[in-house]
Amino acid sequence: MSAPETHPLAAVAPSAPIGRVAIIGTGMIGTSFAAALRSRSLATSVVGYAPGDDAHLARTHGLLDEAAASIAEACAGAELIVLANPVPAMPEVFAQVASAASEQALITDCASTKSSVIAAARGALGAAFERYVPGHPIAGSERSGPGAARADLFANRLWLLCPVDEAQRRLALRLAGLLAALGARVQTMDAEVHDALFAEFSHWPHALVFALCAGIASGEHAELAAEFSGAGLRDTTRIGASSAQLWADIVLDNREAVLECAARFEVSLQRVVGAIAAADRDRLVEVFEQGARWRRQVD
Amino acid sequence: MSAPETHPLAAVAPSAPIGRVAIIGTGMIGTSFAAALRSRSLATSVVGYAPGDDAHLARTHGLLDEAAASIAEACAGAELIVLANPVPAMPEVFAQVASAASEQALITDCASTKSSVIAAARGALGAAFERYVPGHPIAGSERSGPGAARADLFANRLWLLCPVDEAQRRLALRLAGLLAALGARVQTMDAEVHDALFAEFSHWPHALVFALCAGIASGEHAELAAEFSGAGLRDTTRIGASSAQLWADIVLDNREAVLECAARFEVSLQRVVGAIAAADRDRLVEVFEQGARWRRQVD
Repeated sequence: MSAPETHPLAAVAPSAPIGRVAIIGTGMIGTSFAAALRSRSLATSVVGYAPGDDAHLARTHGLLDEAAASIAEACAGAELIVLANPVPAMPEVFAQVASAASEQALITDCASTKSSVIAAARGALGAAFERYVPGHPIAGSERSGPGAARADLFANRLWLLCPVDEAQRRLALRLAGLLAALGARVQTMDAEVHDALFAEFSHWPHALVFALCAGIASGEHAELAAEFSGAGLRDTTRIGASSAQLWADIVLDNREAVLECAARFEVSLQRVVGAIAAADRDRLVEVFEQGARWRRQVD
Repeated sequence: MSAPETHPLAAVAPSAPIGRVAIIGTGMIGTSFAAALRSRSLATSVVGYAPGDDAHLARTHGLLDEAAASIAEACAGAELIVLANPVPAMPEVFAQVASAASEQALITDCASTKSSVIAAARGALGAAFERYVPGHPIAGSERSGPGAARADLFANRLWLLCPVDEAQRRLALRLAGLLAALGARVQTMDAEVHDALFAEFSHWPHALVFALCAGIASGEHAELAAEFSGAGLRDTTRIGASSAQLWADIVLDNREAVLECAARFEVSLQRVVGAIAAADRDRLVEVFEQGARWRRQVD
């Protein structure tokens, strides 16, 4: 593939403050977005909703202006509705947002996968689909939950938008202004390209690191890692401390693209293991060097 | 396996300065050791030897007091001889050290594998084997060469010693005093246990990360990584920028232990890929959670 068509929107001027913002889901991304808006006074109020007590807890910790008792209550009067809930809940949340959002509200999401989320939005939002902009802030961490909230989480990070038609593209420009005011570097990208890229650069590496960690966990030295592992293993496996539930949902949601990466990885793995088994230094150096050349270009 | 018999030697008092120190090999470890000794005035002089111009370059950059033209010249009059050369050169370097070392010289090495290096020492050192202490500073990095030298590289890092008999154990205590003066946390450990632990916590993870990087390098999005990969992928693959040659040698030197780790990893990998292919969320969460539980205990 040639380079995907991506469109930096960095030239967008940071926008003026907007009105009420509703955030559905109070995990790390949702509460960081709330904190980012509030610390810069970019919204007149930020209301959050999450199942159970989570939104109330986030408000108690000063991350929200208000905690709503329902999605409908959160959406009432909101100019911007941000879905920051787990991927499997998307269809149901879109359905509730569709019936509660005002006709002026801009709707976006923060999910790590885009094709299935756009399909869910198309199925559930009805006429509100043209006021929806699919989004993905590239600001993950092995941490999760409101305890990991940071008002500067999006500063100088990519925030990708994947509008599917002209109406969404116009709104994407408006949303980009607000995101730029948080310090994010906004680009637009085709949703299918997005999912292929993030299978490669995020979803498959997470699955692989969980497999590496599970392999070590099943070995006889597992409990000695804290004492004897160096910075290399700690960095390599850091994302293995992530939420198993959240990542299982993301990986399965982008299943076909992830399986393509897995198949390509297995070819490399067999080159490596085959060369080690055969004690073939030249072949081992060749595949290690192919990997190293790629990695040195990333920084 | 139960916990290996390891013996912290932290109670060893940091030793007084010693005389002349010879360092064979002027990569990151050798030059950092030289810089650490010199910055603390722990040796009367530090002389280095490496093939080609490398020792002269290290001296020009202020990392050594002297650059020797041969191993024999470096070893002449040295109280401590430190082998910090690549693993494949060990047999030849031990042979040259054996004929050049004074009868009082303490000999140690910094190699990442111990069983094969001890076998090489046993074969080449002759009577000097009883003045040898196998060693391994846990202070790797994806960087290499004298440009990566740091005088504080060993501060608060483990430095493992694997003496094989009483004579070596007595010398290990003396060496530990000097290493403690550099801030290292010194422990003794059986060489076979050492090699199994470091296959698990370092050698296999390096091989696996090179395979991950080679897999991405062979894909159509390889050149987009610098733009679209987040902190997760960068941390996961950081060690993939390491020296392919150096790590091929280490992995092959510890081949059997590494292949055991590879086999265990492949079981985890098939659990992960099988669960993704079958879209079996419960099974996927189970293996992810097994990995995540292990990883959370490492920090």
